[in-house]
Amino acid sequence: MSYGTIGIIWNLVLGTCDFLGGEKNGKLYYFDAIFLFQGEIKMELEGVEIEDTFAEAFPIKVARVLITAVNDKWALEAAKETTGFGTSVIMCPAEAGIDKIASREETPDGRPGVYIIICTFGYKALEEQLLARIGQCVLTCPTTAAFNALKKEESEKEFNTGFKLKFFGDGFESEEELYGRAVSRTPIMGGEFVIEKNIGAKEGVAGGNLFILAKDQMSALTAAEDAVFAIGQVEGAITPFTGGVVASGSKPGSQKYKFMHATINEKFCPTLKDKIEASELPADVNGVFEVVINGLNEEAVSEAMSAGIKAAVKVPGVVKITAGNFGGKLGKYQLRLYDVLR
Amino acid sequence: MSYGTIGIIWNLVLGTCDFLGGEKNGKLYYFDAIFLFQGEIKMELEGVEIEDTFAEAFPIKVARVLITAVNDKWALEAAKETTGFGTSVIMCPAEAGIDKIASREETPDGRPGVYIIICTFGYKALEEQLLARIGQCVLTCPTTAAFNALKKEESEKEFNTGFKLKFFGDGFESEEELYGRAVSRTPIMGGEFVIEKNIGAKEGVAGGNLFILAKDQMSALTAAEDAVFAIGQVEGAITPFTGGVVASGSKPGSQKYKFMHATINEKFCPTLKDKIEASELPADVNGVFEVVINGLNEEAVSEAMSAGIKAAVKVPGVVKITAGNFGGKLGKYQLRLYDVLR
Amino acid sequence: MSYGTIGIIWNLVLGTCDFLGGEKNGKLYYFDAIFLFQGEIKMELEGVEIEDTFAEAFPIKVARVLITAVNDKWALEAAKETTGFGTSVIMCPAEAGIDKIASREETPDGRPGVYIIICTFGYKALEEQLLARIGQCVLTCPTTAAFNALKKEESEKEFNTGFKLKFFGDGFESEEELYGRAVSRTPIMGGEFVIEKNIGAKEGVAGGNLFILAKDQMSALTAAEDAVFAIGQVEGAITPFTGGVVASGSKPGSQKYKFMHATINEKFCPTLKDKIEASELPADVNGVFEVVINGLNEEAVSEAMSAGIKAAVKVPGVVKITAGNFGGKLGKYQLRLYDVLR
Amino acid sequence: MSYGTIGIIWNLVLGTCDFLGGEKNGKLYYFDAIFLFQGEIKMELEGVEIEDTFAEAFPIKVARVLITAVNDKWALEAAKETTGFGTSVIMCPAEAGIDKIASREETPDGRPGVYIIICTFGYKALEEQLLARIGQCVLTCPTTAAFNALKKEESEKEFNTGFKLKFFGDGFESEEELYGRAVSRTPIMGGEFVIEKNIGAKEGVAGGNLFILAKDQMSALTAAEDAVFAIGQVEGAITPFTGGVVASGSKPGSQKYKFMHATINEKFCPTLKDKIEASELPADVNGVFEVVINGLNEEAVSEAMSAGIKAAVKVPGVVKITAGNFGGKLGKYQLRLYDVLR
Repeated sequence: MSYGTIGIIWNLVLGTCDFLGGEKNGKLYYFDAIFLFQGEIKMELEGVEIEDTFAEAFPIKVARVLITAVNDKWALEAAKETTGFGTSVIMCPAEAGIDKIASREETPDGRPGVYIIICTFGYKALEEQLLARIGQCVLTCPTTAAFNALKKEESEKEFNTGFKLKFFGDGFESEEELYGRAVSRTPIMGGEFVIEKNIGAKEGVAGGNLFILAKDQMSALTAAEDAVFAIGQVEGAITPFTGGVVASGSKPGSQKYKFMHATINEKFCPTLKDKIEASELPADVNGVFEVVINGLNEEAVSEAMSAGIKAAVKVPGVVKITAGNFGGKLGKYQLRLYDVLR
Repeated sequence: MSYGTIGIIWNLVLGTCDFLGGEKNGKLYYFDAIFLFQGEIKMELEGVEIEDTFAEAFPIKVARVLITAVNDKWALEAAKETTGFGTSVIMCPAEAGIDKIASREETPDGRPGVYIIICTFGYKALEEQLLARIGQCVLTCPTTAAFNALKKEESEKEFNTGFKLKFFGDGFESEEELYGRAVSRTPIMGGEFVIEKNIGAKEGVAGGNLFILAKDQMSALTAAEDAVFAIGQVEGAITPFTGGVVASGSKPGSQKYKFMHATINEKFCPTLKDKIEASELPADVNGVFEVVINGLNEEAVSEAMSAGIKAAVKVPGVVKITAGNFGGKLGKYQLRLYDVLR
Repeated sequence: MSYGTIGIIWNLVLGTCDFLGGEKNGKLYYFDAIFLFQGEIKMELEGVEIEDTFAEAFPIKVARVLITAVNDKWALEAAKETTGFGTSVIMCPAEAGIDKIASREETPDGRPGVYIIICTFGYKALEEQLLARIGQCVLTCPTTAAFNALKKEESEKEFNTGFKLKFFGDGFESEEELYGRAVSRTPIMGGEFVIEKNIGAKEGVAGGNLFILAKDQMSALTAAEDAVFAIGQVEGAITPFTGGVVASGSKPGSQKYKFMHATINEKFCPTLKDKIEASELPADVNGVFEVVINGLNEEAVSEAMSAGIKAAVKVPGVVKITAGNFGGKLGKYQLRLYDVLR
Repeated sequence: MSYGTIGIIWNLVLGTCDFLGGEKNGKLYYFDAIFLFQGEIKMELEGVEIEDTFAEAFPIKVARVLITAVNDKWALEAAKETTGFGTSVIMCPAEAGIDKIASREETPDGRPGVYIIICTFGYKALEEQLLARIGQCVLTCPTTAAFNALKKEESEKEFNTGFKLKFFGDGFESEEELYGRAVSRTPIMGGEFVIEKNIGAKEGVAGGNLFILAKDQMSALTAAEDAVFAIGQVEGAITPFTGGVVASGSKPGSQKYKFMHATINEKFCPTLKDKIEASELPADVNGVFEVVINGLNEEAVSEAMSAGIKAAVKVPGVVKITAGNFGGKLGKYQLRLYDVLR
């Protein structure tokens, strides 16, 4: 369906709407169909319905660190260990993940590098997590160095994590300027550990999300994997859950167990579709996975959601994309799917 | 080197000694050379000197969990996230790692699986870590299930982690017997989460280790990687540090900073070799990495050390294998290199 | 389905049948349901229908080589390059693939290793392919060595590939016995290349196969990936196609183009299901992938088919397993699904 | 050493030379030291000597194809199989490799993609290889599509590979315009295979190369791996050998065996250093690996050599970078190390 057609339909329905679609390199870059279905307006991307809803997101404190190493293997190993046990602050000490692979041109030392983002709800916890995670998982890792990866002008806070870690050198360490940055250099068994003295932090955004609904579990899973892979290219955003995908999207509180703060979101559980009355799953949906996104700011999270949706709708079997929210009552940010796809 | 050993070696030099070596499939399976060098006895494996010293190890509480999933990718993703931020209890909430890949025949549900081991110094912390790590990193992960992987008869404790996690099901969950095990089954977005109700725990061993000394940093690193890969085949043992390798082996306390509990082991730092008097590094050694091993028991840790040494000595450029200890004053276990190689 | 089997099944329906199923570790290890459906007998494994048909397979000449290297990365790189462009002898010079990862105990030099299998329809072509593939992809690869991996007693032929490759040494090479094998050792830039002088060959089996039918393309694909992964553990069998999976199962000849020797198997194409009359796809099947298996002998191929089926049926969305044949007219071997699952 | 200092030294030696160095983001981007050593001028990058020599390269015919798939896994699997058994045309039917990972924005169908390059010495062989490799390794591979990845204006030839492959559809195929390209679409078991009808070809460059000399084998190998990884980011260039690295750099002909066209380059074999008179290896060099580069044109190969050198010199233990040539007698292109580093 051409952009012209979309425009015509939209005009028929509501009047003009000049933000709804566009063309780039011969590809429509968001909706490819907008139509009336049983009196309701439906929008589609690659034949997949995009629900008119929003992800509800929250402020969180974030730090961004660049880990470099002698090769990509060790930069990635360090990034994975450092951001491990970091899916949700409900019971993890932080939410953390790999932001993206750095190009060699971007790294101060010209070596392979990986950007990571670590998030907690307060700055005190963030400082503790930076010290513990970098001290235990990067400093200890072969050939690594660690650099601040937030711009000075966007940082609200700076933690002297690199300065504190220098004391591990027991007097053999030095403080220097290297690659135009103030660093501490500590001799270790494996050679030397270089870390920038100050690591910046700021308020970011947690809880951006997508729900991917597909005919079967494996179609939904493949689509979620693809969404995570696409988000991996977006600067400033992470998917903190295991492999980037959430299998157990939840609702706040519990109907049955007063002591539980969060329990299953039964309306989106395929195996309960026919056992409850209020299921939100279409008849042909038997697989649902969620992708949760944190980022440096609203723009990064929006861009990540957009990249994730565009990747997911390419996968055969995907039926619908929606998002999770609390009716707009809890979160500061409302990331509407139609807006992020613009 | 103890007097007893010297006696034995003299016997070897002068006559037969049937425990010091052996042959299997045409390969010597431990020492391939024992000789007098400047009045001192040296032992070699593949031309690499094995120092007559021991790793000093400690009791720790351990749990072993089997994670299964629809494929090896997701079993491994879950295992990595669950054991992340778990290198050393100095500042991580646990020491954790992948034990080994399970064969399909071994898994209760016949799917791909990965064994992990989680360690803390007390049982209370271990129970908390099991609940948090499985609840946040396995339950949330696509297609996974979790099973107790300690035998009943070797368990000292059982934690009802699986029972506790069932409440996430908000009444839609069930308790059943499945594959001959008592499990809870919780419907989730991604399908269903199955977990064994009780997870066993016992006293294990932490701090087994090897030091790999090589002519250059990259030779030592390649050898350490190979050692970690070989240890990955040994049942009941993990290498909890990032990628299994430690770049920053430490000594207790500090000479200069009273507030530090651990600082660099300068005697093994290549860049300090010519700057301090007591360096333990031979003139031709410029690269040193350590592999730290935790396990279910002394035998598993010993076997892992042996597998690691045998792999490391195969790498060109490796000069010497030694181990770290505190003179035998601190640890309950002394794992002598000559003994583990038998 | 043969009369014998029918009789047995009737027995099962009416009474006991102790060979059709079994239990091991609390798991049924083949059929978990056999019942009458609209007058027809159906067999199921994990709720997936297993069709009573057979894979038709052919004799082919095979060689098996063990490649070792300083680490698993390089052993695998060598194995992949050496077996690349090797899916089908229709237009590839060989059918080739990775058999399985060797344990260190199995490799003559105690290093990480990978077994590969190379197949052609004649011995002359096999000798040429061994020389070209090992000479160009293993000899040239960092740190590798190559050993014969067929037992003497099962070999019908021996090719002096290792002897021929020694001339690359320009007189600096040597012929020796190493690890109890006659090898040539050639000094190269990267160190030294060791290769066993003679590589054995024998008649093997090509064309074992499975068809995996699922509700959707991604479910079928995930199941095929899992089948390939499971077959990767079976000794003596390879899945020569790209990533082990065939997306384009074919029929011999063509209805429309006389010059074509093989064209699409339209009866199994989901997008043609409603356009042709003779589709073999059930109404709920929208995804089909094939796994093709070659092996050292009928037993290895059968075992691989069994392992593949058992893995595939575990994947949600899989509906039916069948296999490809030519009515038994062309191939020497008929590998019946019911038999291989026993 | 600052650029100023380099200039001064260079001025002292020869006069001005304004092309020799530069600064970007605070980093010198090529030589960081140029000095007189025993009457000879030496240039260094990160402390590693860069020899003043050149790689001698040759014309070759090349095609560039973009393979897309449902996810990065399958795009890569297809690319690997298609370019396998493709290290050197001495005995492989083509030289082939992965050029680089495509961004989703670049791929016509918006899916993950991988660019590959296939090279042969003549266009006839190239057409055959395109048909065989794409037909057997891409068409057969789950979820893939294949597109021409040479610009019309740079192509000298076009092969109708996509048109020929359509006959596999046995009449069920169609020819269409899709994403602004003329393609054929063939229904297959796995769904549908889309391929652009015409694939462009041109004259490219083969035999760009680097020799990496290091203190030890593992340092040289790690550096070669890093060089290959860095070249992986350069558009239009491949490293066709196994894992991108050559362990067995050769000389033309043989001193001893008249029938051999190429034998070891003994002057660069570490184990022969003390056994021959004309070794080119410095006393402290014990590890040498080569990286061979083919590309679409001289610029791409030069850029790849530069990226490879800059990555290699970062690895501890690397002593010297040089290149292989035949005294300039054989090849059309002379890629001087000093020039490519500009």
